[in-house]
Amino acid sequence: MIHFRPVFFIIGILLATLAVAMVLPALVDGAAGNPDWSVFAASAALSLFIGVSLIIGNWAPHFQIEVREVFLLTTLAWLIAAGAGALPMVFSALHLSFTDAYFEAMSGITTTGSTVIVGLDAAPPGILLWRSLLQLFGGAGFVITAIAVLPYLRVGGMQLFRVESADRSGKTMPRVAEIASGITVIYLALVAIDATALWFAGMDGFEAVCHAMTTLATGGFSTSDQSIGHFHSPAIEGITTVFMLLGGMPFVLYFQLLQGRPQRFFGDSQVRAFLGLYATAVAALVLWQWLGGGETFPQALRDVSFSVASIMTTTGFTTVDYQTWGGFAVVTILFLTVVGACTGSTAGGIKIFRLEILYVTAKAQFRRIVQPHGMFVMHYGGKAIPDPVASSVMGFFFLFALTFATLSLALGAAGLDFLTSLSGVATAMANVGPGLGAVIGPSGNFAGLPDSAKWFLSLGMLLGRLELYGVLVLLWPEFWRG
Amino acid sequence: MIHFRPVFFIIGILLATLAVAMVLPALVDGAAGNPDWSVFAASAALSLFIGVSLIIGNWAPHFQIEVREVFLLTTLAWLIAAGAGALPMVFSALHLSFTDAYFEAMSGITTTGSTVIVGLDAAPPGILLWRSLLQLFGGAGFVITAIAVLPYLRVGGMQLFRVESADRSGKTMPRVAEIASGITVIYLALVAIDATALWFAGMDGFEAVCHAMTTLATGGFSTSDQSIGHFHSPAIEGITTVFMLLGGMPFVLYFQLLQGRPQRFFGDSQVRAFLGLYATAVAALVLWQWLGGGETFPQALRDVSFSVASIMTTTGFTTVDYQTWGGFAVVTILFLTVVGACTGSTAGGIKIFRLEILYVTAKAQFRRIVQPHGMFVMHYGGKAIPDPVASSVMGFFFLFALTFATLSLALGAAGLDFLTSLSGVATAMANVGPGLGAVIGPSGNFAGLPDSAKWFLSLGMLLGRLELYGVLVLLWPEFWRG
Repeated sequence: MIHFRPVFFIIGILLATLAVAMVLPALVDGAAGNPDWSVFAASAALSLFIGVSLIIGNWAPHFQIEVREVFLLTTLAWLIAAGAGALPMVFSALHLSFTDAYFEAMSGITTTGSTVIVGLDAAPPGILLWRSLLQLFGGAGFVITAIAVLPYLRVGGMQLFRVESADRSGKTMPRVAEIASGITVIYLALVAIDATALWFAGMDGFEAVCHAMTTLATGGFSTSDQSIGHFHSPAIEGITTVFMLLGGMPFVLYFQLLQGRPQRFFGDSQVRAFLGLYATAVAALVLWQWLGGGETFPQALRDVSFSVASIMTTTGFTTVDYQTWGGFAVVTILFLTVVGACTGSTAGGIKIFRLEILYVTAKAQFRRIVQPHGMFVMHYGGKAIPDPVASSVMGFFFLFALTFATLSLALGAAGLDFLTSLSGVATAMANVGPGLGAVIGPSGNFAGLPDSAKWFLSLGMLLGRLELYGVLVLLWPEFWRG
Repeated sequence: MIHFRPVFFIIGILLATLAVAMVLPALVDGAAGNPDWSVFAASAALSLFIGVSLIIGNWAPHFQIEVREVFLLTTLAWLIAAGAGALPMVFSALHLSFTDAYFEAMSGITTTGSTVIVGLDAAPPGILLWRSLLQLFGGAGFVITAIAVLPYLRVGGMQLFRVESADRSGKTMPRVAEIASGITVIYLALVAIDATALWFAGMDGFEAVCHAMTTLATGGFSTSDQSIGHFHSPAIEGITTVFMLLGGMPFVLYFQLLQGRPQRFFGDSQVRAFLGLYATAVAALVLWQWLGGGETFPQALRDVSFSVASIMTTTGFTTVDYQTWGGFAVVTILFLTVVGACTGSTAGGIKIFRLEILYVTAKAQFRRIVQPHGMFVMHYGGKAIPDPVASSVMGFFFLFALTFATLSLALGAAGLDFLTSLSGVATAMANVGPGLGAVIGPSGNFAGLPDSAKWFLSLGMLLGRLELYGVLVLLWPEFWRG
């Protein structure tokens, strides 16, 4: 039997927290004399009321929570946070339809960054702040989920990232809580540093705060339709590149860095592979653009280093339309879109560590073919990979391909063309933001898609964010039978 | 140490066989009064000379052949057969460059069916027959490789298809030889039946024989630039649909059908999944074209049932340009391209049984997530799947994706656009034939691609045909060290 009371209790806390957060945009709109402040205040009151009701109605002196409750809670948390996040957008001056508002909120809370809003530059500040806050929350929520929840659910190889208990008494959970709060502090500190740097580089204070929140969350919402390209500033692009890359690496390593264990950071195989792949892709595309694309070397370096960081970290900020760079660049960008960055970061995608595991597995198979009677142990990060982890990762890969195919077909059936269907699903599932083609490409917008396509893409964002298994396991009949 | 003598000995036999086969187009050109007969005669003499030299030079009373020799032999056989197959095309009236001739021959011997020749309708009969013969040989060679070679090399899960020895004395190899010759007879009989049916349906005798050979080989070379669309005949399309589907199912089952074991055929899980997927895709696309695409129901049924069979069996014949059917159809066709048909047939692609194994593995993982302490055995075809088979199949899947990405990037770097790069690699690796887009789509031709792209695609065809591992293992340094 599934215990719903603890699930609803925690959802109540989540709603109450979001309600408190809605006070910020209400204040900003109030200060700016924008009537939307009342929309945020009313949404806050409604969310708070439901949240507190859930807390009181499901309070118990002692809770028992097990694997299935955690799965249910995780998916519900994202679904309901998107619903609450959509609330102010439906009633704001932008008058979004519920479909559009839910898409926008899901894109925020999953740190995807695809948008249906045209005219950001003239939008009221409350809405702009709210979108950034959704990504800030979504990013923090995901990093903590990836440390505290997914490893224990053994989802897609995540069991590799279990926090070892520091002592022999096996107190894992207090240690997880300690790490989670440490990471939250580091996350907010990085946002503050980024905001300060952006402010010095020429953004106004509001823009700097909004962009810093969506940068570390690798979300990609901007205050301008032209995204970071709006500012025409090499300094802002450089700062954003660095902080996107920081957002794409495991936050737990920053924690260890501060604890005086730098070897943990610089020796981490995922970080090394991530930075190595980034450097390789940048080098290849800079050469491509410099020698073949008619850009000067500094210009190519500026455009490529920013765009590749934005795609690989699944942030989705844009400065230029890289689709004009030709087939090689577009194919590279499509593949980097699904690769993503490191697990334990705010980034989406298949994740670097999964590619490393797949590589190690493929290598072991070559060995086994050549020497049928040999015994081969696969290693990752200096440790042997248990067999279930390898098949978990491979199962994830297959499920990714299957979900990708199914959602692409759904988008095709909704009337979208080939390139929009494929790249739309890729960008949603990897939580990147922009797709390819004229409609949803880096200069495009998701507003023009049919409603059905927006719902399919919202589903894709959720599936991608919760590593597929997190959501799909709820559709498994045995889950409910227990 | 690798023993090269038996490898060269068998390559010699292969070359001598091809030399004998070249006599057929020489005779046809001679009868038609076409001067190309002398090109075929000279190529036959040269191939025969090299072949016989290899046979004599490497003859030994007793051969020892082991795993590594078999790998080397398999890849070399396809590389050299393509070289010998290209020979007459370089010197024929078509005056192909060596790149074009090698591409065309590799496309033939791997039963892909992509072509660089424009003006097939006016081409001399010798060349047309030679192209069809290459596919006939390639198809038979692949079916026998898939029974007699790949299962013992444990390539990509193929170990599931080992022929069990009929008695307890373990005489597996004589049994394999018996099955291989039985299958060859069945294959040729099906070609003869198809040719007769096509002749009755209105093709002339030459066209009927050429098309029957490339249909059962699921190759797709035609005697007309318009492929099967040239004949404007529902009867020819219907017959071809049936024989393409027959070419896409395991030939060993026909053997068992004739031995009076029909339950083996109709109960085979791969056949059922293949036909089920075919029926589902046809139903979906017929509805799509009928209700949304403005075709009448009979017309939609005719176009869709043919095109889907052609793509799924990786034959690549075309009658209409399905790219005009819209996003849903194009996405469907891209995915079906890489799926392919049954292992043990002449078809390419990832193969149905691999998708079944992946599905079963993903299912077991859902179970394991819900019940962390349960034990789950995965089944395929009523038998438990050993763990190494599951990881073999998953490794194949990953390697397919990696090779796909690498070759797509190479094509992009060669200057091809996004759609041509992606679909070109897909169609080559799955041995289908046509790609997507204006250049290499169903109404297009590979002639206009740069030479480098043709070599990358030739490599893709070879990799796809030999199930990736068959070729890639030769690039593994430990292979040569032993």
